[in-house]
Amino acid sequence: MNVLVINAGSSSLKYQLFDMDTETVVAKGVCERIGIDGRLTHKPVSNGKPEFKAELPLPTHAEAINAVIEKLTSPEYGVISSLKEIGAVGHRVLHGGQKFSESVLINDTVIAAITECIPLGPLHNPANLMGIKACQKVMPGVPQVAVFDTAFHQTMPKHAYIYPIPYSYYEKYGLRRYGFHGTSHRYVSKIALEMLGIPAAGSRLITCHLGNGSSLAAVKDGKCVDTTMGLSPLEGLPMGTRSGSIDPTILSVMAANEGLTINQILDVLNKESGVLGVSGVSSDFRDIEQAAHEGNARAELALDIFDYDVKKYIGAYMAAMGGADAIVFTAGLGENGPETRERIVAGLEPLGICIDKEQNNVRGQQRDITGKGSKVKVFVIPTNEELVIARDTKEIVGK
Amino acid sequence: MNVLVINAGSSSLKYQLFDMDTETVVAKGVCERIGIDGRLTHKPVSNGKPEFKAELPLPTHAEAINAVIEKLTSPEYGVISSLKEIGAVGHRVLHGGQKFSESVLINDTVIAAITECIPLGPLHNPANLMGIKACQKVMPGVPQVAVFDTAFHQTMPKHAYIYPIPYSYYEKYGLRRYGFHGTSHRYVSKIALEMLGIPAAGSRLITCHLGNGSSLAAVKDGKCVDTTMGLSPLEGLPMGTRSGSIDPTILSVMAANEGLTINQILDVLNKESGVLGVSGVSSDFRDIEQAAHEGNARAELALDIFDYDVKKYIGAYMAAMGGADAIVFTAGLGENGPETRERIVAGLEPLGICIDKEQNNVRGQQRDITGKGSKVKVFVIPTNEELVIARDTKEIVGK
Repeated sequence: MNVLVINAGSSSLKYQLFDMDTETVVAKGVCERIGIDGRLTHKPVSNGKPEFKAELPLPTHAEAINAVIEKLTSPEYGVISSLKEIGAVGHRVLHGGQKFSESVLINDTVIAAITECIPLGPLHNPANLMGIKACQKVMPGVPQVAVFDTAFHQTMPKHAYIYPIPYSYYEKYGLRRYGFHGTSHRYVSKIALEMLGIPAAGSRLITCHLGNGSSLAAVKDGKCVDTTMGLSPLEGLPMGTRSGSIDPTILSVMAANEGLTINQILDVLNKESGVLGVSGVSSDFRDIEQAAHEGNARAELALDIFDYDVKKYIGAYMAAMGGADAIVFTAGLGENGPETRERIVAGLEPLGICIDKEQNNVRGQQRDITGKGSKVKVFVIPTNEELVIARDTKEIVGK
Repeated sequence: MNVLVINAGSSSLKYQLFDMDTETVVAKGVCERIGIDGRLTHKPVSNGKPEFKAELPLPTHAEAINAVIEKLTSPEYGVISSLKEIGAVGHRVLHGGQKFSESVLINDTVIAAITECIPLGPLHNPANLMGIKACQKVMPGVPQVAVFDTAFHQTMPKHAYIYPIPYSYYEKYGLRRYGFHGTSHRYVSKIALEMLGIPAAGSRLITCHLGNGSSLAAVKDGKCVDTTMGLSPLEGLPMGTRSGSIDPTILSVMAANEGLTINQILDVLNKESGVLGVSGVSSDFRDIEQAAHEGNARAELALDIFDYDVKKYIGAYMAAMGGADAIVFTAGLGENGPETRERIVAGLEPLGICIDKEQNNVRGQQRDITGKGSKVKVFVIPTNEELVIARDTKEIVGK
């Protein structure tokens, strides 16, 4: 069975077509500038056909899906002969609120529930819904599945997800910690258990999804018990452009001094903060590392702040779970940042954690980088959220 | 030498008169409702004289200081014969910004600097200044010393105090982590080193000041390297009525849903949140513990959230310092909450931390409560911020 995986943003739509018999990517691509002018990049992977890349009008998400289907089935760039060869569609959906603790077959009730979660994911959920509705229009009858970024974290105990604010805000508006990157934390924690060769029961993992957006999860008995992102993906670690957790009083001082509204401040905290805000150089860790190597003190400070915060959360989650069997590094920076990994675990030997410097010299590959004498294993595990979505989709459709 | 210690709030003024030859409290008391109607409670401690407690007009802080002096020297309630027996005055000052890393003799330059820090401590610094100016007026010529809540934390490295927000906010407005309760963290960390019998160099302590306001500090080599409170005393742990750290997005959702301004939201986060907000019962941990014992689920949840957060910060600071020699519990709850202490360290055995259940059955007394086999010592150490202020004052005036 072929499964089409869709990740729809407000003006973009990424896709991957999986052959689920072999779990391989047959074709992938991205529609950009939807509703503006439109651009499609399409890459056939399974055969020798050329890449397609051109501007073309994409007024709506439905037209974008149409263009994708057209390319997937075209004689020149295609990988399948007709729409009938797509057995199901899996959608990445940001926010499932408290309603979804696992992936689900999409029907009207599910669409209504995703719509209800819009206040919790105001930027992403409407885009995800546009992707779903576009597929329903263009591919009627093809079963569709929603896979939520929040689902894996729904096992958190109440003391980890309730904020110390008046309880009525939780009851009235669902203000609580949800957590994100759940598909990634779930995927790498499963592989980590395989690498450890131990059952989920009794296991304690700390998964570090470090990229432009970053979060850690504490995974006990195979289930998430805590995570650094919260109500929104802004909380927790400093990120490329996001501040992570800061003193809430900062918002009132920013408002008073700069005459900003709350939403303008949130914009600063989401888009101009994090390692970009501190370094003044870039939101990309490669640029910042280079600047730091060249002696830029604020670039070095930005890296120090980031590494130090990851280090502290690792300690926090060891305390929360009473130790850890393994620490997992994944996502762009986690997979491809040997220097970052080295700085994060530096000085953690007294907690039973060290890495092998040579083994750590790895990018984008699954590897055990545990150092000699380290009680806690340290793994690099490339994440693959699209594969998880495709697998969930196949499994649910096959039921 | 007698030293008068003053802690001035906006409508209150607490005082203790110390005999610094014996380091004992000679008399203490509090002026309340200053500028409203006025009430004075005065307790002679060193002799058998009765307590004075009455309403009396206190239109300004100067009148309050006058009333205190009058009682300290009165035949009926007094402990000294005249103003001349007060050798110096020590003031608790909340915010010293980046200017003060230790206590200082107050002069016009120091007053100007404390005034400059008002934007960082808008509630407390103006009150502290009123106390200082009242003493200057009533006791001209008596040397006065300022002891800052922030001073001990000024040794934090930059990666611990710079927020991941645009760097210009630090440069323009001094937005950074400052930390509070510094006098308490400093006092108990010094005693902990004595109890450990080790020098400051190479030592690593985690001091837990748990009360209605709560903060932890990581103290390495006798110097603070990190603390949970930040720009303001709102950050970090959940407290009696304060939220501590939360997802900044919560502020925008609160604004949108409840039509609140930023300052109204900060009021909710400062005054209606924390364990009060979650439990709906009280901001006092004794009330909440009782309600939890009686089966109130939200009271239990509030305690769980608090204990869990302290536990995580202990882990975080162990990671930050590469372990710990001792964990210190102090302040109202830290000194008098055996249940809280037990819950906080529960499950930390794999990190080398446990307490002795019997030894832990202690309130308000210095005691080593370390459990058998615990690598990390655990101490209860009553704090005494007033004594530190009196000692600093004596030392500085004696120079």
